[in-house]
Amino acid sequence: MPDTDSAGDLNVLSEDPLCAAVFLKNLDVPVLPNEGHFIRSHFPAPQINTADWSLPITGDVNNPLDLSYDDLLKMPSHEVINLMECAGNSRSTMQPPAEGVQWDNGAVSVSSWKGVSIKTVLEQAGLKASATDVLFVGLDSGDVPAAGKSMPYEMSVPLAKLLDADTLLAYEMNGEPIPKDHGFPIRLLVPGWYGMASVKWLTKITVMDHPNGGFHELDYRFYPATDGKVDSDVTRVSSLKIKSLISTPVKGNILEPGKHTIKGVAWSGDGDITRVEVSTDDDRTWRDAKLDKPSGKYSWQHWEIDWDATNLGHSLLRSRATDSAGNVQPMLATWNFRGYEVNSIHSVPITVRKPQ
Amino acid sequence: MPDTDSAGDLNVLSEDPLCAAVFLKNLDVPVLPNEGHFIRSHFPAPQINTADWSLPITGDVNNPLDLSYDDLLKMPSHEVINLMECAGNSRSTMQPPAEGVQWDNGAVSVSSWKGVSIKTVLEQAGLKASATDVLFVGLDSGDVPAAGKSMPYEMSVPLAKLLDADTLLAYEMNGEPIPKDHGFPIRLLVPGWYGMASVKWLTKITVMDHPNGGFHELDYRFYPATDGKVDSDVTRVSSLKIKSLISTPVKGNILEPGKHTIKGVAWSGDGDITRVEVSTDDDRTWRDAKLDKPSGKYSWQHWEIDWDATNLGHSLLRSRATDSAGNVQPMLATWNFRGYEVNSIHSVPITVRKPQ
Repeated sequence: MPDTDSAGDLNVLSEDPLCAAVFLKNLDVPVLPNEGHFIRSHFPAPQINTADWSLPITGDVNNPLDLSYDDLLKMPSHEVINLMECAGNSRSTMQPPAEGVQWDNGAVSVSSWKGVSIKTVLEQAGLKASATDVLFVGLDSGDVPAAGKSMPYEMSVPLAKLLDADTLLAYEMNGEPIPKDHGFPIRLLVPGWYGMASVKWLTKITVMDHPNGGFHELDYRFYPATDGKVDSDVTRVSSLKIKSLISTPVKGNILEPGKHTIKGVAWSGDGDITRVEVSTDDDRTWRDAKLDKPSGKYSWQHWEIDWDATNLGHSLLRSRATDSAGNVQPMLATWNFRGYEVNSIHSVPITVRKPQ
Repeated sequence: MPDTDSAGDLNVLSEDPLCAAVFLKNLDVPVLPNEGHFIRSHFPAPQINTADWSLPITGDVNNPLDLSYDDLLKMPSHEVINLMECAGNSRSTMQPPAEGVQWDNGAVSVSSWKGVSIKTVLEQAGLKASATDVLFVGLDSGDVPAAGKSMPYEMSVPLAKLLDADTLLAYEMNGEPIPKDHGFPIRLLVPGWYGMASVKWLTKITVMDHPNGGFHELDYRFYPATDGKVDSDVTRVSSLKIKSLISTPVKGNILEPGKHTIKGVAWSGDGDITRVEVSTDDDRTWRDAKLDKPSGKYSWQHWEIDWDATNLGHSLLRSRATDSAGNVQPMLATWNFRGYEVNSIHSVPITVRKPQ
């Protein structure tokens, strides 16, 4: 069994359920170690023994399945380098604030995931023509006051996204069995989407002829701040918005005058990042950073830029990404009731001071 | 003696020193009661017995004075309706956040203050031609880690502002002796400026030929986020910036569908408020609110607007003020290292829902 506590060098925001963010200084790597990947749980992590566990695939299928852990390990495997970001990442930076875990910017990580394409499993099960969505149910459950009942974490995903070979029933994270807090033994991995769809601790898969529309599915929606546009504007949170973060320096750092390298990461659910600009003078001027090539369709791109901090005092460093679809990171993300998809330009206050 | 604890219906952010904010729902009055005025102290409030207390006025004067409490009560009095706002009010809404008391928007209040024009006292003391600034020292003191020493709260104010008859050595607040937490027996009152200049618990006044430039005076500066503009851009925090707040409804309120009145206040250190606009649809459209006439040069103006909340769901209410000098409240206040003068458009998320 993997460790029960994988919250290593993380900033724990909540212990029950466990929610823990990365420290941005740790992002200057291609892939984070398992103990360094952010954690977002909705309920306490269930303890699963693979010998007692299986995964039924039922509903609108011609050939219902019940797969054991070993069955899955024996199927053709597929690997994806995946940037996972919580839909509520950076929620604490939205004004006015929204209810929910007050993530700073650390609910994002990249790992290598290995598993079986869910497409392969669904093909084995034989989808009926009526199938449009698939419901994934986790073994984690608990009271949900807002729903007025006890329930598991569950979410349906449209079939189109599941027929992409990169969408996995994952069993390995960076070459190891998935740690307990990340969904052992099997989790769904939906690359390019916010993390809420990557249901952990899978216990049941049901093919449906409609979206399930359960509590969590309704909760992870982009409720806009509009008077009278509720029905038409409420879309599900899905694809990752364009975003960049500065990882070096970090907020509050005191730098000596002279040459420094500002580093960070950038990603988008709509294509490659084609440009990252950096401002060291509060949005007056911007310079292009040196941008790494994409290391994978669903990964991040690192960037860096030299900065000669010749003047003493305070500076606000900002980074702004552009992607191949022409999206540019906004200064202010669109406000929404639940604080999702916050991708405002990252701003990092630092001070330049002579050594004392 | 006034009560030792005047923090009545306030949101206490810090107990030592006492920092307590108003609840915005309480702002729909011309003047707040003493126990409802926000409190911002830098050190524990000193207990002063007026029999043992006097106020020396020395320095660049021809006729040094040492005034007793009774001396001051006997001098010609002057009354000012004054909006006091902490320079750090709304700091918690600035992104990225700044160090300091994390005020929401409640570090603002209006009271009626009575006292002696400091001008009268300075004229009695006979200003020398060299006089340019006056240092006001409070009896409150303590360790200041950032300064590396124990010190009193003190601040100098330029003579020009002190020769305005409305700048007071105040001894009454809303018709009562000033409560302990507000500076008993005598505080400086600098109308139209942020609260940091209105030094409480006065113990010494020194006329100088230069600004004092002590720790608090350097701390209350607008340190911009600029690379290389430190010296030229660092101005002292002084005049109140234009601002408006919504007092009804408040964040998180759930309203029934139908007609409601949105209310609030607005003020500016640069003149009267001439217009308040309100948006109920996230900055898409704005309507003019009905605006009260100014009740005094240094007070606030109330405003209100009817809103027919016909549609269910979430709304973000915003208010935006314009003053007679043409200043308009910005969507985003200018970021600065200490988080002062934050006057971003106030945004209040509410929900319209049928009674269940």
